[in-house]
This record gives sequence, C-alpha cells and structure tokens, in this order.
Amino acid sequence: MPHLTIEYSGNLDGRSDMAGLCRSLHAAMLDSGLFELGAIRVRAVRCEDYAVADLLAENAFADLRLRIGAGRSVADKTRAGEMIFAAATAHFAPLFETPHFALTLDISEPDPALSWKKNAIHPRLRGT
Amino acid sequence: MPHLTIEYSGNLDGRSDMAGLCRSLHAAMLDSGLFELGAIRVRAVRCEDYAVADLLAENAFADLRLRIGAGRSVADKTRAGEMIFAAATAHFAPLFETPHFALTLDISEPDPALSWKKNAIHPRLRGT
Amino acid sequence: MPHLTIEYSGNLDGRSDMAGLCRSLHAAMLDSGLFELGAIRVRAVRCEDYAVADLLAENAFADLRLRIGAGRSVADKTRAGEMIFAAATAHFAPLFETPHFALTLDISEPDPALSWKKNAIHPRLRGT
Repeated sequence: MPHLTIEYSGNLDGRSDMAGLCRSLHAAMLDSGLFELGAIRVRAVRCEDYAVADLLAENAFADLRLRIGAGRSVADKTRAGEMIFAAATAHFAPLFETPHFALTLDISEPDPALSWKKNAIHPRLRGT
Repeated sequence: MPHLTIEYSGNLDGRSDMAGLCRSLHAAMLDSGLFELGAIRVRAVRCEDYAVADLLAENAFADLRLRIGAGRSVADKTRAGEMIFAAATAHFAPLFETPHFALTLDISEPDPALSWKKNAIHPRLRGT
Repeated sequence: MPHLTIEYSGNLDGRSDMAGLCRSLHAAMLDSGLFELGAIRVRAVRCEDYAVADLLAENAFADLRLRIGAGRSVADKTRAGEMIFAAATAHFAPLFETPHFALTLDISEPDPALSWKKNAIHPRLRGT
C-alpha cells in the first residue's frame, strides 16, 4: 500500500484522460508526504456497463478508493484525502461544469495482521 | 454513495445482459426508498480471466458489492439488501437452472470521516 | 465467498499468464483446507491505465484482495494467506528478478449480517 483504484463509467472515454488522472493522483499522494514513492500504485478500471442517477446517457461517475497502511493519524489521513480529492476535482473541472457528473473518494485501512507484500521496486529507489 | 459494483466472469457475455442488470439493480435500489436518485451509481466489471469452483468452462459468477453511507438501521439495510438480491436473482433465473452459477451480495459502509464527494447531478435533480 | 480479486497493471500482458495465476491461486485456496470447492471464485481485473512508483514504463503490480466468510481463527486465516501469497510469489518469480514489480495481498471479512448468496454449483459438487 497505498493502493488507489478508480472505477469510472466508460462514457468518460474521450472526455477525460484517465492515464493523466492516474499521474495527477499519484503526484498528490506523493505531495501528501505520507507515502513512499516505491509503494504508490494508482490504476483505473473502466466499466462498460453502468446505470447512474436518472439514467441519462451523459451521466458519468468516477469513484476513488484508497487503501493505506494502518497507523496514521486521522489528521494525516484527512489531509491526504483532501489533497487527493482536490487533484481529482481539478482534473474533472470541465465535467463539473455539466449537470451530469459525480465524484467520490474514500479511504480504508486493511487489517495489517492479514496483509502480505513483496516489493522489488523499493530496493532500487531506496538505493539499498 | 450508494455505489454498487458487479464483478462477473467474462463467460456471462452473451448469456446475460449486464447493462440490463445494472438498470434492474438501480431500480431495486430506488425502490428501497433508502437512496436518493442522483446518488445511485451501479456498474459492472467484466473479468476476462477467472477460476471458479471445479473449473468447468461453464462455471460463472456475479459478485455484487454495495457501499452505502453510514447511519442507516440494520433493518433498513437488510430490507434494501433483500430487495437488491431478489432483483439480481430474478435477472439470473435462467442461469440458476444450470448447476454452474453462483451469486453473492454484500453491503459495507465506508468510514464517513474519510469520505469525500462532489456531485453535479444532485442540483439538477433536486431542482435547486 | 471466498472471493479473490486480482487487480493488475495492463503491462503484465504477455509477461505473465493471468489465467494460470487464477488457477494457481485457486489451487492454493483449496489446499488451505479452509474453503469449499464450489465456493471458490478467483478472477483478474486488467487495468489499462495506471501510475506505479517512479512511473517507469516497466513498473508493474498485482494486488490481491481476498474476502472470506467470517468466523475463522486468526491462525487459520494467517496460514491461508501465507499459502496464497506463496503461490502468487512463485508465479511472479521472473518478475521479482527485475526491480520493477510489487505484489500485495490482504484478507477481509464482509459483515455476515449484510451478505446474501445463492449457489447453484454447490448441489452438483456436494452430490445432494
């Protein structure tokens, strides 16, 4: 961790640069100061089928779920969440000018006693 | 929220109308009376690779995960879950006539202190 | 349940056999002795867009999330997690020889009071 997964309605294709969003959120996570570079993993899951609000064809959403290691303070988590959500809001500014878009973010902490990890990137970036 | 994500095995393509399922579950969520129209977001994630039960090629699954805002009573959540599961079961009735299909639903409540949202659909639907 | 979802960066295509990984993890879950064959559902979700660590094009990840029924002992859950993670690590051994890959697993237990299931595979495999 941290893992950030973006689920989004497929009608955002061509209206929003999802690879760019991944990079923007990655930058916000790094800027928060809470996460080590080698551990940050952001990705987007495109959903071909969906049903949003009043079912207009233009209705679209992005839903961000961030999972982080346990043990950080509520203040730190709140600050990181605000930074990430601000980056997402800025990315989607053109869509917020329409009455057809909704954005969410939530943060959770998987049980550290039931988590496993192996990271071959850390040694390279840590220079160890 | 609410967010409802359906993960399903790719072999359901051509055997089940996933866009139709999204709309059926959307209707069940609305019928429950617990959720505001402008907040409902249902989507399906197709999984190309999978391994189900005894690995027969026909084996298929759909797994529904509903995330809702905190604070509703257990009775309300149970009733909504039953309505949504009934809609999913009805949708998949032809598959339940085979010995090759399994369906699940669970409901969770993300921590409201670590949730953010911005919804441009609400003002349009609320008429405000 | 159990449900095991693998999210992975799309650049693993051609470098890792995801259908084979699903089968290997399925076998590890069965070997753990904790799960009934007819209930095991493993799948992979390919993510076309992502941003990993220092953003090198080679950087890749796989993130495994296992959801299981409530009530098992911590010792049982830990043992099952170790077996599944060992199978994943073995599968990805060639990638761990590069400084560009990271793997994670975590286990969670959805609230049994807010879970529903209907399984047409069980009767066939139970012979009932």
